[in-house]
Amino acid sequence: MRIDIISVLPELMESPFQTSILKRALQKGLAEVHFHQLRNWSVGKHRKVDDEPYGGGAGMVMLVEPLDLCISELKAQRDYDEVIYLTPDGETLNQRMANSLSIKKNLIFLCGHYKGIDQRVRDLHITKEISIGDYVLTGGELAACVLADSVIRLLPGVLNDEQSALTDTFQDNLLSPPIYTRPEEYKGLKVPEILLSGHFGKIEEWRHDEALRITQERRPDLLQD
Amino acid sequence: MRIDIISVLPELMESPFQTSILKRALQKGLAEVHFHQLRNWSVGKHRKVDDEPYGGGAGMVMLVEPLDLCISELKAQRDYDEVIYLTPDGETLNQRMANSLSIKKNLIFLCGHYKGIDQRVRDLHITKEISIGDYVLTGGELAACVLADSVIRLLPGVLNDEQSALTDTFQDNLLSPPIYTRPEEYKGLKVPEILLSGHFGKIEEWRHDEALRITQERRPDLLQD
Repeated sequence: MRIDIISVLPELMESPFQTSILKRALQKGLAEVHFHQLRNWSVGKHRKVDDEPYGGGAGMVMLVEPLDLCISELKAQRDYDEVIYLTPDGETLNQRMANSLSIKKNLIFLCGHYKGIDQRVRDLHITKEISIGDYVLTGGELAACVLADSVIRLLPGVLNDEQSALTDTFQDNLLSPPIYTRPEEYKGLKVPEILLSGHFGKIEEWRHDEALRITQERRPDLLQD
Repeated sequence: MRIDIISVLPELMESPFQTSILKRALQKGLAEVHFHQLRNWSVGKHRKVDDEPYGGGAGMVMLVEPLDLCISELKAQRDYDEVIYLTPDGETLNQRMANSLSIKKNLIFLCGHYKGIDQRVRDLHITKEISIGDYVLTGGELAACVLADSVIRLLPGVLNDEQSALTDTFQDNLLSPPIYTRPEEYKGLKVPEILLSGHFGKIEEWRHDEALRITQERRPDLLQD
């Protein structure tokens, strides 16, 4: 999988891709991530990438031309499965979407900034708009990191057995049951006896019941899908 | 505001806090963010911070003792408004939660990793569990960055007028209307005439209608709250 990330602040995204699981995935060649500084496609003598909105109002708008030039140049080099704009207005990211993006080959992520991008970029290029949640961030860069992380960790070979994605929260629409490790007792708080029993079948049953109970308590909406 | 972030991978979170708006907020002293490497509180001769789950199964569990020691040490130094565990099982972050956290003074963010934390850490210390969305990440570090960003940008003085948070998506439960900037025409695509009319009242009306239309189309759930 190849991901091209377009941004006015690529340096914001350095450390997440240089650490731990994502770093190893890139080193092993399981995924490629390329950053593109949008200012390299700026136009005119002022080398601008944004301007004031027509009709007035607060906030700057990212210009259509630099974005069109940058995306067109990438598209001329290879076929992209999706050109994704990270924006709070987009479809809300969930595990199903991450699963389905994880089988794609080439993706462009466009990080919005300021008040957003000129509508015509959406009309010309964007095939999918994704929001990582109902809150506003200073820019789309952290959203791009989150989306990349959620997708790359699903690629074969990225996680080892100990990190196994199969028993993750959301893969079965249930939250996780409580988990415990050593010691058996800490400040008077004990590990539930069932987990020490060695009865694998009963333990699985307990875990399923607990997962169901917690999901009903905290996120009944997940059970209605 | 002071945020203490506990993690086994603090280096993953470096660049987001060293760039742009968050960097300036920290430099101006509008917010303080302190990272705590959990391994500094590891115990026993093997200096472990995780171990296998009781009852078997994939994934490692973060030990109760190092987390208890680290959080207790912080709590002895000052009062915390919330001790927040970033986990996909938590309450889903939204703008209202970000707004309400932005008026707090001291917060602890605990980044989960591996399969999560020993349940007894939750029982002993955690006052709030937050999920940034219904998807799984390689760890809680990016979630901590997202939460910190969503909260810090709301602190007085962090954003300038041009970045104004008041007209953000979600602040009024509506998505944003389309926005445009120069040029008036690009590859045959024109800016809607109303935005060039100079009638501020009519422009505001158009923007509200468009915001409503887009919200009805994409996120009718936001209108039901």
